[in-house]
Amino acid sequence: MSEDVRRVALTTDIGEGFGIWRLGDDEALMKIVTAANVACGFHGGDPRIMRATCEMAAENAVAIGAQVSYRDLAGFGRRFVDADVDELIDDLLYQMGALDIFARLAGSSVSYVRAHGALYNAAATHKGHARAIVEATRLFDPSLPILCQDGTATWTIAQESGIRVVAEAFVDRAYTADGLLLPRTQPNALVTDPDEAAQRAVRMVTHGRITAQSGEEFPISAQALLVHSDTPGAVEVARRTRKALQKAGIQLSAQL
Amino acid sequence: MSEDVRRVALTTDIGEGFGIWRLGDDEALMKIVTAANVACGFHGGDPRIMRATCEMAAENAVAIGAQVSYRDLAGFGRRFVDADVDELIDDLLYQMGALDIFARLAGSSVSYVRAHGALYNAAATHKGHARAIVEATRLFDPSLPILCQDGTATWTIAQESGIRVVAEAFVDRAYTADGLLLPRTQPNALVTDPDEAAQRAVRMVTHGRITAQSGEEFPISAQALLVHSDTPGAVEVARRTRKALQKAGIQLSAQL
Amino acid sequence: MSEDVRRVALTTDIGEGFGIWRLGDDEALMKIVTAANVACGFHGGDPRIMRATCEMAAENAVAIGAQVSYRDLAGFGRRFVDADVDELIDDLLYQMGALDIFARLAGSSVSYVRAHGALYNAAATHKGHARAIVEATRLFDPSLPILCQDGTATWTIAQESGIRVVAEAFVDRAYTADGLLLPRTQPNALVTDPDEAAQRAVRMVTHGRITAQSGEEFPISAQALLVHSDTPGAVEVARRTRKALQKAGIQLSAQL
Amino acid sequence: MSEDVRRVALTTDIGEGFGIWRLGDDEALMKIVTAANVACGFHGGDPRIMRATCEMAAENAVAIGAQVSYRDLAGFGRRFVDADVDELIDDLLYQMGALDIFARLAGSSVSYVRAHGALYNAAATHKGHARAIVEATRLFDPSLPILCQDGTATWTIAQESGIRVVAEAFVDRAYTADGLLLPRTQPNALVTDPDEAAQRAVRMVTHGRITAQSGEEFPISAQALLVHSDTPGAVEVARRTRKALQKAGIQLSAQL
Repeated sequence: MSEDVRRVALTTDIGEGFGIWRLGDDEALMKIVTAANVACGFHGGDPRIMRATCEMAAENAVAIGAQVSYRDLAGFGRRFVDADVDELIDDLLYQMGALDIFARLAGSSVSYVRAHGALYNAAATHKGHARAIVEATRLFDPSLPILCQDGTATWTIAQESGIRVVAEAFVDRAYTADGLLLPRTQPNALVTDPDEAAQRAVRMVTHGRITAQSGEEFPISAQALLVHSDTPGAVEVARRTRKALQKAGIQLSAQL
Repeated sequence: MSEDVRRVALTTDIGEGFGIWRLGDDEALMKIVTAANVACGFHGGDPRIMRATCEMAAENAVAIGAQVSYRDLAGFGRRFVDADVDELIDDLLYQMGALDIFARLAGSSVSYVRAHGALYNAAATHKGHARAIVEATRLFDPSLPILCQDGTATWTIAQESGIRVVAEAFVDRAYTADGLLLPRTQPNALVTDPDEAAQRAVRMVTHGRITAQSGEEFPISAQALLVHSDTPGAVEVARRTRKALQKAGIQLSAQL
Repeated sequence: MSEDVRRVALTTDIGEGFGIWRLGDDEALMKIVTAANVACGFHGGDPRIMRATCEMAAENAVAIGAQVSYRDLAGFGRRFVDADVDELIDDLLYQMGALDIFARLAGSSVSYVRAHGALYNAAATHKGHARAIVEATRLFDPSLPILCQDGTATWTIAQESGIRVVAEAFVDRAYTADGLLLPRTQPNALVTDPDEAAQRAVRMVTHGRITAQSGEEFPISAQALLVHSDTPGAVEVARRTRKALQKAGIQLSAQL
Repeated sequence: MSEDVRRVALTTDIGEGFGIWRLGDDEALMKIVTAANVACGFHGGDPRIMRATCEMAAENAVAIGAQVSYRDLAGFGRRFVDADVDELIDDLLYQMGALDIFARLAGSSVSYVRAHGALYNAAATHKGHARAIVEATRLFDPSLPILCQDGTATWTIAQESGIRVVAEAFVDRAYTADGLLLPRTQPNALVTDPDEAAQRAVRMVTHGRITAQSGEEFPISAQALLVHSDTPGAVEVARRTRKALQKAGIQLSAQL
C-alpha cells in the first residue's frame, strides 16, 4: 500500500454479548466507527443481538463485517481450537449465512469478513486455518474482502485465491519489532491513553510506520484501524482517534 | 384443499446428527423422499452435516426445507421452551440464514419452512410462537410456504399474514379423533407396520380421510406426507409409502 | 414460622457470569450478604467462576447455596423449559455435584438448595418440577434445606418429603395481593429505592407482613431475604437492608 | 512394571451419547469390561446418561473412572483446545464433581481419572495440560490414580506430584515404533480383527511387549487395557480379549 493513502476505515468488534450478558458500549462505538466487526454467535453474539447490531450499523451507515470465530462461547473464541479445515470452513459459512439475513433485514449487507480472536491469530501462521477463512469467504461471496494483517498466511492465501485483502492495523495494541502484536499477557500490551493511541493511528495512515515496544520503527499497512471494544476506555480511544484522523485530513470511510 | 389432489410431497426430518453423533439413515431416505426437512443446528444438525445434507438433497433433486427449532440440543428440540416471541423470531431467522448458504452452495435453495418437535406442537395452539414461525418466514422470504397441519394456529396466522401453507399429514403417527397426533408416550402412537402406513398415506391423499385411534374417521388435508426418520423401520415405511402412492397414480413432487 | 423470629439470612444470586461475561458486583455483595446462591453453570456460572465464588464465600463466612437451573445459557434460565421430571432431577444433581467440589475445595460446603429463575417460578405451581427440585436435593443430601416461598408447590412437596424448607422473601420485588411476585414486565415490579427496600425487609422479619402493590397487607414468612444482584443499585439495596436489619436488632445469620 | 504382572483391568470409554444420540453398545460392553471410563458431559455424556451409566457399572461391579475432556461437544473432545491451565483444572474438577454424585447415588464411587481424546493426546507432551489433569485429580481426591501411558508428561508429572499412575495400553490401536499411537488418519491405525487384538492384549500383559506397525518390537506397560467403544466390532474385540486373557491365566480386575 502506498504511503500517501488518505482514506481509512475505523473499525471495532461489536455485538459481543450473549443472552443476558453484554460487552462493550456498542451504542457509543457505533456512532464513531465506520465499519463494525459483528460477532456471529460462535464466540459471542446471539440472534437478537446480531439483529439489533445490524440495525444499529445500518442506521449509522456503518459497514457490517462478519466477525467469524471458532465455536467457543466458554472461551470467547480466544483459545486455539484444532479444528479440521473442512469443518472450520463450514462453521464459518454457517456464521456468515446467519449474519447475512440480519444484515439484509436491516437494509444493509455483509461487506467484509474478519476472523476473531484465536482464529485471527492462528491464521497468521496456520495455513490450514488461513485457508479455511479464505475458502469460506470465497464460497460465501468472492467479492468480499478479508480484513487481516499484511504479511500473514491469511493475507498471502487470500491473494493467491483472488480474494481481496484489506490491511488492518491496531490502534490500541503494542507491536513487537517484527510486526506482530505484543501478547495481551505482557505489560503495556494495551495502548490505553486515548491521545497516544490517536497519534499512533494518524502516523500509521499518513506515514505507514509504527514504533514497536522496543523503540524500533517499522513499516505498516493500515487501510482499516481497529479499536477493541473491550479495551479500557475504548469509546474515548475511538473518539479521539476519529478526531485526530479527521484533523489530519484523512477520510474516514465505510468502504473496505 | 380439494379431495381430488393427486400430487403430494413425501418428506422426512433429516440431517439430525450432531458432531460425532448420527440419527436416522439419511442416505437411504434421501433417495426416497421428495422434500427434506433439514435440521439447522438448534436441535440437531451442525454446519458440516447441513452442508452434506444439502448436497445430498440437491443430487437427488429433493427440495430443501428449513426445519427450525427452539435452541435445545440437550432436549433435541422436543421440549417446549417459553421463549419471547421476538427472540424466537431471531432464533429462527438465524437458522434459516445459516441453512440458506449451504442450500445455495449445493446449487439449490431453501424452498419451505417447517417447525421441529416441540415448536411445531406448541405452535398448533400457542399464537405467539405460531406468529414467530410465520413472521420469521415472512422476513426471510415471503414467497416460501410453511408446512403445518390444517387448522392449527400456525396455519391460521400464516394465511392471515399472506404466507402460503402446505398441509402436512403424518404417515407413521396415530391421530386422535380431533385431528391431533396421539402423543408419543401413548401405546400405538407410532405406526410402524410399513404396509399399514403406506395404505394410510394413500387414503389420506386420495380420499382426504384418516381413521383415528378410536376408530372414527375424519377429514384430513395432505399435501405433504411426513415419515419420521427416527421411527423404527423408517426407511422401509418411506419406501413402501412411495411405492403405494405411485401405484395409486399419485404424483410425488418436490414442489411445495 | 412464628412472628417473633429475630434471625434472618440475607442472600443474593451470585457468580452469574460466563466465560468473559460478568453480571453484578459479586465482590461487593459478598461482603454484605450472609448466604450466596451460587450459579452452577446451566444458566450462568462456569467452573472458574464457581471456584472463585466459593472461595470468596468461604473467606467472608458466607453460606454457599446451589442455585440450580434449567439448562438454558441463552435464556439465562429465565424461560420455562418443559423438561421431563427424571431428566430434570439428573440435571439438578449434576449442577449440585459440580458445585460441591468447589465448595469443598474452598473449605466450605453446599448448605442449601435454591432453584433459579424460571424453574423457581414454575415450581411454585408445577408439581413435577417442584418434585424434581425436592428429589434432587434429597438424593444429593437430605439434610439440606430448600429456599422457597411459603405456600408454593416446592414448599409443600419438600415438607411432605421430609426436606426442610426455609421461607424466602424478596427485598427488591413488588408482590401481588395473593403473595406472588409482580412480574418483571410490569411497571414498579422492582423496588429500587434502597431505603424503601430496607424498610420492607425489616417489616417482613419483625411483623411478618408486607404491603402488596395494590395497597393491601398480607402475612409473609421471611427466614431468608433475597436481593437480586442484577437489580439496579443492588449493592446499595443490600447494604442498607443489612444496616436496617441490624439496627432493628435482627441477627443476620449464615445458618439456613 | 514387572513382566510377571498377571492382573489387568479391561476398560472402555462409555456413556458417550448426548441427548437423543447414542454411541457404542454400552450395555454389552458393561458386561465385559472391569472398568468404565465414563464421559462427564464436556465431550459426550449428559446427566441422565451419566446416572444410568453409573448404575450399570455398579450393577456389573465395574469400576467407574472420570473420563474428563476439553469442553467441546461439537468436536467430541477430539480437537486440541488451547485452554489456560487454571481454567482447565476447574473444567476438569467440574466434571469430576458432577460424576461423583452419580457414582455415589449408584452405590459406587469414582475410582480413577482418565483424560479423553485430544486432552489425553495433548497431555502426553503438553506439560501445562498434563499438570491440569494431575492437579485436578489431586484436588478432587489425591488417592485416585490416573490412567495414562507410561512415559508421557501426564505419567511423569503425576509421579512427581505423588499421584499414582496406572499404565494403559490399547487393544485396538496400532503403535509406532516409539510407543505412540498411530494416528487415526493412517491406514491400519485400528486393529479390528478380534483375535489379533486379543492376542496383542495377552502378549502385552504376559510379555510386556508389543509389535509396532513397522514390525519392530518394544516394551510396553499394561496395567489397564483399553477397547474403544466406537471401534468397529468393539463388543466382539472386548469379548475375545477378555476370554483370551482369562485363558492365559490373567486375572481381570476392577482394582486400579
